[in-house]
Amino acid sequence: MSRAARPAATEDSTSNSFAGVFAMLAPHMGALDRFLHEQLAAFEPEIRAMVEYCLDTSGKRIRPALVFLSGWSGANEIAPDLVRAAAVVELVHVATLVHDDVMDEADVRRRRLTASREYGPTPAVLVGDALFAHGLYLATQFPTTEICAAVTESTRRVCAGEIVQSLRRRSTDITRADYQRIVELKTAELFRVSCFFGARLAGSRPGFVTAAGRFGQHLGAAYQMYDDLVDFFGEEARIGKTLGTDLASGKLTLPLLELLERLPADETPALRAEIAGERPPQFALRLRQMRELAILPVIAEAVQVEVAAAAAALQEWPGHAPTPLLLRLCDVLQAQVAGLGPAGA
Amino acid sequence: MSRAARPAATEDSTSNSFAGVFAMLAPHMGALDRFLHEQLAAFEPEIRAMVEYCLDTSGKRIRPALVFLSGWSGANEIAPDLVRAAAVVELVHVATLVHDDVMDEADVRRRRLTASREYGPTPAVLVGDALFAHGLYLATQFPTTEICAAVTESTRRVCAGEIVQSLRRRSTDITRADYQRIVELKTAELFRVSCFFGARLAGSRPGFVTAAGRFGQHLGAAYQMYDDLVDFFGEEARIGKTLGTDLASGKLTLPLLELLERLPADETPALRAEIAGERPPQFALRLRQMRELAILPVIAEAVQVEVAAAAAALQEWPGHAPTPLLLRLCDVLQAQVAGLGPAGA
Repeated sequence: MSRAARPAATEDSTSNSFAGVFAMLAPHMGALDRFLHEQLAAFEPEIRAMVEYCLDTSGKRIRPALVFLSGWSGANEIAPDLVRAAAVVELVHVATLVHDDVMDEADVRRRRLTASREYGPTPAVLVGDALFAHGLYLATQFPTTEICAAVTESTRRVCAGEIVQSLRRRSTDITRADYQRIVELKTAELFRVSCFFGARLAGSRPGFVTAAGRFGQHLGAAYQMYDDLVDFFGEEARIGKTLGTDLASGKLTLPLLELLERLPADETPALRAEIAGERPPQFALRLRQMRELAILPVIAEAVQVEVAAAAAALQEWPGHAPTPLLLRLCDVLQAQVAGLGPAGA
Repeated sequence: MSRAARPAATEDSTSNSFAGVFAMLAPHMGALDRFLHEQLAAFEPEIRAMVEYCLDTSGKRIRPALVFLSGWSGANEIAPDLVRAAAVVELVHVATLVHDDVMDEADVRRRRLTASREYGPTPAVLVGDALFAHGLYLATQFPTTEICAAVTESTRRVCAGEIVQSLRRRSTDITRADYQRIVELKTAELFRVSCFFGARLAGSRPGFVTAAGRFGQHLGAAYQMYDDLVDFFGEEARIGKTLGTDLASGKLTLPLLELLERLPADETPALRAEIAGERPPQFALRLRQMRELAILPVIAEAVQVEVAAAAAALQEWPGHAPTPLLLRLCDVLQAQVAGLGPAGA
């Protein structure tokens, strides 16, 4: 589980990558790793290896980064409360990933077998539950019930978002408003609460706590749109997961929504049939059409709207230590989106 | 979700049935039903119908009953704190049932389609998560973090127990100690915390709070043994679920453990093969052998040991209002076990 043992990053380490921003958080992530490792002792001996396996595959740790950056008060300061809150959001997130992989019957995450493939779906559902429960237990270890209340509400909303998405799978009858609602619930919510925790636990003034939450919410929406773009325009080797899964599994994400709107009318029935699972998905064709119809700039624009809303939330807090760091995340996200296009889109 | 709308009880209503004891809790259960119904508004509109469906199938409500009985201070007193705590343990329990039914691919629970069959396994896993999250959210609505901390720890232990059980499925290499450990984690734990909540929230003295927890733990172990007996010796029409599922799914519960020990050596390979899933399960044969080898009295004796330990936990609190009510549960459980035998075992 040591961060040092991992390959430096799955994305390039220029200043416009997540890895670039997160480099400054290396000591914080080290503290988080140690904290998470210590948590293994809290689990029953019979399930520790499974829990450790799940933690190992946990990826970029964007949500913990949001906790640390929103509560930033200087590079040498690693507040134990922030480490614990980072562990809370990470454990909840990992639990949802473990359940996602069971439900999607996914084989690989972060270049390793998913917990579901390694241990079987039944233990994977249950270890997801145990990760959930322990994340929420850690949230009870603050002096007030506020943190635990916020994360349990947030978790319920994340699940609701995933339910809505799952009930809409294979449906082509989805609007942009539906997509936005799913994104708000399944992704923006935990980003929001991560920023809220960082600001709140660092003792920021209530106005900044609210602003940080709003920032996180919009950044989360932007991030999900980026992630949905990656599923088409990413490079498999760099991302470390299979592309085209949304088309294959019938998830009508924003790139597909835009494509459906822009394709000539006589070409949409075939795409609808692919989404509905009535015809095999034509990933290469759909990607080519997306390039021809300039879908990427359209979605880059939608990302830009959310990023601007995120930045606007912090407008009144220019002198606050976390503000420039959080704004840098906005730049990184936009650069990442731009980097998906063959000529920077 | 109205309790009044249900058939009176799935078990007979004599004084030695659970229904008999629970009759005195009718106003409390009514309050719990109203409270749970009010909670629907907290869920996102898109998932309310699913949540309501899951709550509807929730069964006997033994855990809420333990909360109410352990916090008993008179028939006219329905403390809001106890109602909320009862909702917490019920929601956590229902969440585990929903996940169990997904993993077991069960069709029917309480005479209705399981959530997994009604909505599909993916929404069912997620609605289980949402029920979990909301149960734990309700636990944050007490003034201190103590209640939420207790239920999150307990939930983790329940999951650990189910993981151990699931990893041991189809294995014939299980000892009584292994069985005891699974029972402690997956069942006794939530019974313990239910009694702890009732006593604690009623403001009982710390000695009684601890005693009630210990009572719940032993009663939970006894109850699980009874439940495992029912899977062989119960009457399908009365119980409302399919019998023989433990043998069919390769769960080596206490009746099967005892049968394996008592069968002549040359007959055990066939039974082992059935548990391992290498031969079709011979439920009628195994039940007949259990009767011939008098397995029921052996397990009735094991139940009696746990029931006695439960009663012993309350020994120093004879004058406390909850004590006689909790002890009556012990009598009921023993009567239920005895009632499984053709001649009262």
